[in-house]
Amino acid sequence: MMSCFISWTSRRVAVIVVGLLAGALTHAADEPGRPNILLILSDDAGYADFGFHGSREFRTPNLDALANQGMRFEQAYVTAAVCGPSRAGLLTGKYQQRFGYEENNVPGYMSTSGTIGDDMGLPLDELTLGDHLRSLGYETVYIGKWHQGNADRFHPLKRGFEAFYGIRGGARSYFPFDETNINYRPEDYLERDFGGFEESDLYLTDALANEAIDQIHADRQQPFFIFLSFTAVHSPMEALTEDLDVFPDLEGARRTLAAMTLSMDRAIGRVLDALDQEQLAQNTIVVFTNDNGGPSDDNASDNSPLSGTKANHLEGGIRVPFLIRWPGVLEEDTVYSHPISTLDLLPTMYAAAGGEPGELDRIDGVNIRPFLTNLEAGRPHQTLYWKKEVRAAIRDGDWKLLRFPDRPAELYDINADPAETNDLATTHPQRVADLYRKLFEWELTLERPRWQLRRKYEGDAMKRMDSYRRTSDD
Amino acid sequence: MMSCFISWTSRRVAVIVVGLLAGALTHAADEPGRPNILLILSDDAGYADFGFHGSREFRTPNLDALANQGMRFEQAYVTAAVCGPSRAGLLTGKYQQRFGYEENNVPGYMSTSGTIGDDMGLPLDELTLGDHLRSLGYETVYIGKWHQGNADRFHPLKRGFEAFYGIRGGARSYFPFDETNINYRPEDYLERDFGGFEESDLYLTDALANEAIDQIHADRQQPFFIFLSFTAVHSPMEALTEDLDVFPDLEGARRTLAAMTLSMDRAIGRVLDALDQEQLAQNTIVVFTNDNGGPSDDNASDNSPLSGTKANHLEGGIRVPFLIRWPGVLEEDTVYSHPISTLDLLPTMYAAAGGEPGELDRIDGVNIRPFLTNLEAGRPHQTLYWKKEVRAAIRDGDWKLLRFPDRPAELYDINADPAETNDLATTHPQRVADLYRKLFEWELTLERPRWQLRRKYEGDAMKRMDSYRRTSDD
Repeated sequence: MMSCFISWTSRRVAVIVVGLLAGALTHAADEPGRPNILLILSDDAGYADFGFHGSREFRTPNLDALANQGMRFEQAYVTAAVCGPSRAGLLTGKYQQRFGYEENNVPGYMSTSGTIGDDMGLPLDELTLGDHLRSLGYETVYIGKWHQGNADRFHPLKRGFEAFYGIRGGARSYFPFDETNINYRPEDYLERDFGGFEESDLYLTDALANEAIDQIHADRQQPFFIFLSFTAVHSPMEALTEDLDVFPDLEGARRTLAAMTLSMDRAIGRVLDALDQEQLAQNTIVVFTNDNGGPSDDNASDNSPLSGTKANHLEGGIRVPFLIRWPGVLEEDTVYSHPISTLDLLPTMYAAAGGEPGELDRIDGVNIRPFLTNLEAGRPHQTLYWKKEVRAAIRDGDWKLLRFPDRPAELYDINADPAETNDLATTHPQRVADLYRKLFEWELTLERPRWQLRRKYEGDAMKRMDSYRRTSDD
Repeated sequence: MMSCFISWTSRRVAVIVVGLLAGALTHAADEPGRPNILLILSDDAGYADFGFHGSREFRTPNLDALANQGMRFEQAYVTAAVCGPSRAGLLTGKYQQRFGYEENNVPGYMSTSGTIGDDMGLPLDELTLGDHLRSLGYETVYIGKWHQGNADRFHPLKRGFEAFYGIRGGARSYFPFDETNINYRPEDYLERDFGGFEESDLYLTDALANEAIDQIHADRQQPFFIFLSFTAVHSPMEALTEDLDVFPDLEGARRTLAAMTLSMDRAIGRVLDALDQEQLAQNTIVVFTNDNGGPSDDNASDNSPLSGTKANHLEGGIRVPFLIRWPGVLEEDTVYSHPISTLDLLPTMYAAAGGEPGELDRIDGVNIRPFLTNLEAGRPHQTLYWKKEVRAAIRDGDWKLLRFPDRPAELYDINADPAETNDLATTHPQRVADLYRKLFEWELTLERPRWQLRRKYEGDAMKRMDSYRRTSDD
C-alpha cells in the first residue's frame, strides 16, 4: 500500500500552499483533482480492541497500517452513545437532538408515546453528507448498515446516495438468510439500490467489502464518496471458523469478537488494496471510525482505559477510534490530541470536495483541516455536548460534567483523568454550576425527541454504566 | 349555613362507630344515606390569597367559613405544577405520568415531536372519578373547566360524567362571547352536555355556580357527585366592577385578582347555601382545593410563605389550599398536618360512596379518611413524587429533593423550612444519594410523555422559579 509519501518538509510547504489556494477559491466544485472520500464506520467496537490502540489480544494489521499512514485522533467523539443518533449526527453535521433524533430508533423497544416502527427515521428535511457531496458533483455510494429509518421514504437513495447495497436496519446475522430464517424483518435483508433484495453467499463483512471494492474499480468521471458502514462488530456474535482459529487463547464471546474484528480488518485491507490497484490512494481521503463505545456486556468489547460502554456518556461510550489518511495534507504517523467530533466530518469533507462550509445551513461541525495542519491554532471545539433525556454531558475544555437521573452530577478533568475515576464535583462547585448552566443553554436549543425508548431501558443504562466503571486502582 | 354541629365528644364517638361499621361492611353501594360529594376546584390561585390562609388583602368569607366547619390541610399537594397533568392525577387517582400525561396540554405551545392539538387528552383507557362514582350509582356532574382533551372522544360525557356545563379547554374570557369574538376556539365556548354550545350572559364564575345550584336543586333518587371546576382565578384578568370596587387599596392585576377571588368566593357561598336550602349539607362532603400554585407573574397571585409558582416544583408550585367539610366524620375547625395528595380524593370519595378502594385498579392515592379520624396512625404517604422531564422532586418524610436541568439538586427539610430557603444538599450527601435513587426508581415505572412542550418553555420555567424564591430574610 501507500509507500510514496513526500518528505516532511516538502509536504509542509504543500499544505500551506493548498491552504492559501483554498482561501482564494470561493467555490471549487470544478477544481481538478478533488479527492475521493472513503468513510469506513465500524459498529459497537471497543476502544481498546485495535492494534493501533495497543491491543495485544486483537489483530488489526490493516487498520494499524492505516494509522501509520495518516493521523490518529486521541480524543474523537461521537454525538451519541448509541447507533442511530450517532449516525444521524455524523450524517448531518448537526447535533441530532436539534431535529428530535435524541434516542435510538429500535423497532420493538419504543414507547408508544412517540413515533414507532418504520416511521422512525432521519427527518426528511435534513440533508446528509450524501446530499452535500452529491451537490458538489460527487458520486455517492452507501454500503452497509443504514439505521436511519426502515420506511421507503428514509431509504439511502432518497437521502443523497446514488447507490446502495446494505441493510436498512441496525443489525442482522452475518450469514446468509434462507427459507429457515422466517422471523427476519424486511430491514434485515441485504438490498441493492431500492428494493433489490438479494442475499449474498458470503459472510456479511466480506459481502460489504466486496461491494466497496467493486465501487472503487468502477469507471467514473467524478470523484466518489463511499460510505462503508459495517455491521461488524455489532452482535449477533458470529464469526468465520478460520478467524476463530486465529485466537486459540481467547474464549467465548471475546474470541468471537476478536475473530469478527480480524475479519473486518482483513476486509478493510482488501478495500484499501483496491484503492492502490486503481492508483487512487494518493487522491483518496480515508477515514475510519466507530459509531459508539463498545457494549461490553453484549459483545465482550473492551473500552479500556476508558470507563463506560455503549449507551452511557462516560468516555467509553462516546470516545471512539478515529483515523484519517489524507495524502498530501496530513502527515504520516501523526497524532492529533484535541477533541474532535464526528460532526466535523461533514464540513471537513465538504471543504475537501471544494465546497464552502460557511454556506452550509447551520451545522455544528467544524472543518478541522486547518486545525490538523496547524494553520489554525487551538481547539476545533471548546465545548461538546451529549444528551439523552435526563442523562447528559458537557465537555468544556478539559472539564466534563455528567448529569444523571439517579445521582448527583459528576465532574472530571478529562486531561488528567480520562478514565473518570476521580469525581471533582464536590470540590469544584462553581465549575459544576457553570457547566450545568452551559449544558442547559444548549439543551434549550434542541427539539423534543420524536421517538422515545421505553422507560425501563433508562434503568438498564445506569446499571450498565455502573458495571463498567474503572477505579483509580485499575 | 352549617350551624348544627354535634358536640366534640359525641362526634368523636360517632366517628369511631362509623369507622367500625365501615370496617364491617365489605361493599356498601346500597348503604342508605351515602353522602353527596361536591368537589370545588379553583384554578391558579395563590397559596396566600385566602382568608383561611391568613390573607389580609383578599376576602374569602365563605371559604373561611367552610374551613371553620371542617378540616383544613396544611400540606396538601397536587401531582403537577400545571393544570392539565394536575387534573389528570386528581381525576384518576394515579400519577398521571404513568399514562404519559407528564406535560401540560396547551394547543399552540407543543413540539410537533409528540401529539398535538385536540388529540391531546386523558387516555381513553383511564377511568375517572366520574366513572368510579357512577359505577357506585352516583349521578355525576361536571361543571366548568375540563382541560382533559378538546376532541369529542375526551368529552366529560364520555369520561364518566352524565351532565356537563362548561368549557373543554383551559381558560377563556369571563365575559360572554359574541360575534366580535371571532378568534376564539371551539373549546373556549360554554357547552351544555355534548355539543350544546350556549353562551351565558353572566360573568363566567357566576354562570358555573348557577349551574351547580341548579344541579343541587334537581330532583334525584341517587346521591350526586358534582365537580365544580372554576376557571377562576386563571387569566385573563377580568373582574366585575362591583368586585373591583371592594379593593380600592389594591392596584393593577393584584386588584383584579382580589376581585376575581371575591367573586369566586361569593359564588361558592351561593352553592353552599343551596345545599343548606335543600337540607343536604349534613350529608354532603364538600372539598375545596386548587389545581396548582399561583402563577404570580401572570395573575399577580401570592404563594407566600412558600417559594415558587405554578410550573415549578418548589412548594409554591405544588402545595395548595385544601379544605374538607364532612359532617359527622371530620370535626369542625380542625387542621391536618401530614402531607396528603389530590391523588387521595378518588379512593377517599370512592370509599365514602360505599366502594372498596382495594378493588380499584392500581391507584396511587390513599383513602385518607381513617388517617383524618385518627383510626390510622402516621402519614398517608411516606413518599410523594413530581416530574416534568428533567425537573423532578421527591418528598420522603419531611425531606424533599428537587432535581433540576441546569443546576445541582437541592435538599430541604420541609418541616423546618417550608419556604425552601436553606439548601442542605452539600451537608447531607447520603440523603441526597438515597432520595435521588428513590426518585429514579419511581421514574422507571412511568410511561414516556405523550405530548411535549416546546423546549424553550423549560428555560422559562427555570427563570420563573428563580424569580419567586424566598430567602431566609423574607
